[in-house]
Amino acid sequence: MSIAGPTYLAFDIGGTKIASGFVTLPAGGAADDVADARPATSHERAIPTEASRGGDSIRERLTALCAEQLAWAADNGVEVSGIGIAAAGVPDSATGEIVSATDILPGWKGQNLYRAFAAVTDLPVHMVGDVGAHGLGEAGYGAGRGRGIVLSIGVGTGIGGAIVIDGRLFQGAHGVAGHAGHVPAALGEGFLCSCGTTRGHIEPVASGTGLRDLYNRRLEERSGGADSGGTVPAPAADGADVARRAADGEALARGVIEDSARALGECIGGMGNLIDPDVIVVSGSVVKAGPLWWDALREGFADSALPLVRPTPLVEGLLGGDAPLVGAAVAVHRSIA
Amino acid sequence: MSIAGPTYLAFDIGGTKIASGFVTLPAGGAADDVADARPATSHERAIPTEASRGGDSIRERLTALCAEQLAWAADNGVEVSGIGIAAAGVPDSATGEIVSATDILPGWKGQNLYRAFAAVTDLPVHMVGDVGAHGLGEAGYGAGRGRGIVLSIGVGTGIGGAIVIDGRLFQGAHGVAGHAGHVPAALGEGFLCSCGTTRGHIEPVASGTGLRDLYNRRLEERSGGADSGGTVPAPAADGADVARRAADGEALARGVIEDSARALGECIGGMGNLIDPDVIVVSGSVVKAGPLWWDALREGFADSALPLVRPTPLVEGLLGGDAPLVGAAVAVHRSIA
Repeated sequence: MSIAGPTYLAFDIGGTKIASGFVTLPAGGAADDVADARPATSHERAIPTEASRGGDSIRERLTALCAEQLAWAADNGVEVSGIGIAAAGVPDSATGEIVSATDILPGWKGQNLYRAFAAVTDLPVHMVGDVGAHGLGEAGYGAGRGRGIVLSIGVGTGIGGAIVIDGRLFQGAHGVAGHAGHVPAALGEGFLCSCGTTRGHIEPVASGTGLRDLYNRRLEERSGGADSGGTVPAPAADGADVARRAADGEALARGVIEDSARALGECIGGMGNLIDPDVIVVSGSVVKAGPLWWDALREGFADSALPLVRPTPLVEGLLGGDAPLVGAAVAVHRSIA
Repeated sequence: MSIAGPTYLAFDIGGTKIASGFVTLPAGGAADDVADARPATSHERAIPTEASRGGDSIRERLTALCAEQLAWAADNGVEVSGIGIAAAGVPDSATGEIVSATDILPGWKGQNLYRAFAAVTDLPVHMVGDVGAHGLGEAGYGAGRGRGIVLSIGVGTGIGGAIVIDGRLFQGAHGVAGHAGHVPAALGEGFLCSCGTTRGHIEPVASGTGLRDLYNRRLEERSGGADSGGTVPAPAADGADVARRAADGEALARGVIEDSARALGECIGGMGNLIDPDVIVVSGSVVKAGPLWWDALREGFADSALPLVRPTPLVEGLLGGDAPLVGAAVAVHRSIA
């Protein structure tokens, strides 16, 4: 049992839901103080993002949720030390403004959350990107715990990442640092990336939707050729579907999983050569694709990494869906420490 | 005219020569204090590396050169505040040991330069990698001056790089950080990289020797096809030769310069997305290939960089061959500041 430290109200604003919860960090706060101390999350409340209602609506419902949570805390004697936000898009941690957002969140860009939260609370508020928060969580209390330089990579619907140096998020010149999905990969040539390029990024062939698209493209190419006698499988619905077919032994799906993971591993090797982290943490839905995916990922990494980088641990994240909330709490804790 | 600050004795240990010189930093030391203050380099002395004589011999002749230079300084009333070393290979800045070196420098790996220099001087000694020193020089007093996060990339015989954050070299977990040449590139598939991979790194098709190898491979493929009536050009001797042929309008050479620079630009775009620097400085012999190379480099960068990263300045280094000596002086200055 570890002694409880400060409690933060944390938010994780994504494309489908806005999660919130109280995160109590272990006493001492920093992960390396007590090796087995884990943050505790309580009174989690989520609302649908309803992105189509626009950025103003999200902002209003977010601050209403904040007010509700703070009222609950006051009623229940929970002392809240600050508010941490993990936000979709590219937030400016200094000003509280969302400086960039994808089309999934219309009207989200330009919202200023520090100003909005100031209307409902006097508590210190700190915001980082959701992928950055994920990295902070894993670096502080997950698979990167106790390591100096953590490269965290999330492989889900898209591919994102974060660089955490000595417990702090490295945000770069424009808050963009860590965008691990937008690096060249031969396998991605001709696939449209979410950033708009078709010159070949890794994301459109190694994210969850990327696995699906790569599978369906190959299926089409195969079907489009000379008449084949056998039955042709239906197009895959998503990445998990491809992983299932691979687990069932389907050769096409196995090849897609292997090629995709190997290409991603090679990209991660290149990132390792550039950043030279102490540990590389890989999280997200796609890491559940199984040993076929992991083996190919590690093979690709070993092929591309320099000898001194090759032994760097390439491990699965430990915190799962809680990572952004924990990381948001770490972010605000660090900002006022 | 700026006021002179401390003077350091600097060394730049490369595969062909060991350069040394006294570097006087402007008063204040840091570049951003005085916008136009430039370091002054004096009494430069170089000896051939004679790498084949082995690492022990390099170390002995290096410390002898140091003793000579310090004797000159004493005779001439030059007060030396410390010794900065820019070393080929991967040095450990904490211990003074060369932890990795290529076959070009047999017996260099394992040498401990702090121990060796301690036999000839009591001055503080600090060592960084030569590519790192180059980056520190450009970040402090060159094209990266006054910028917070500088990504420096050297494109010469090989491709190296350095990440400088707020005037300090980011060295990573094993001193490897900044190895910009070892990232995936479709164009590099099947070309042997200096790190041993043939899966496709950018270095073997975008360094100076890479330009030559890409040219000669394409020449061979063309010649190896059906008999062609016209005259076939001789193989290129080096990257500069390819650049000359391109400047003369030869289509094959122009295509090689464009494809190579574009692929490198795409890789730099990916690195920009991952690190999000304030400025990207490109130096080395290949940047002299001219506007054809620079235009393609910038095109590739723009294709691959995210919207917020695309406006990042991609500029040529300003210090030329002096950058590593200046950077070595900056490194020791920072280490004792």
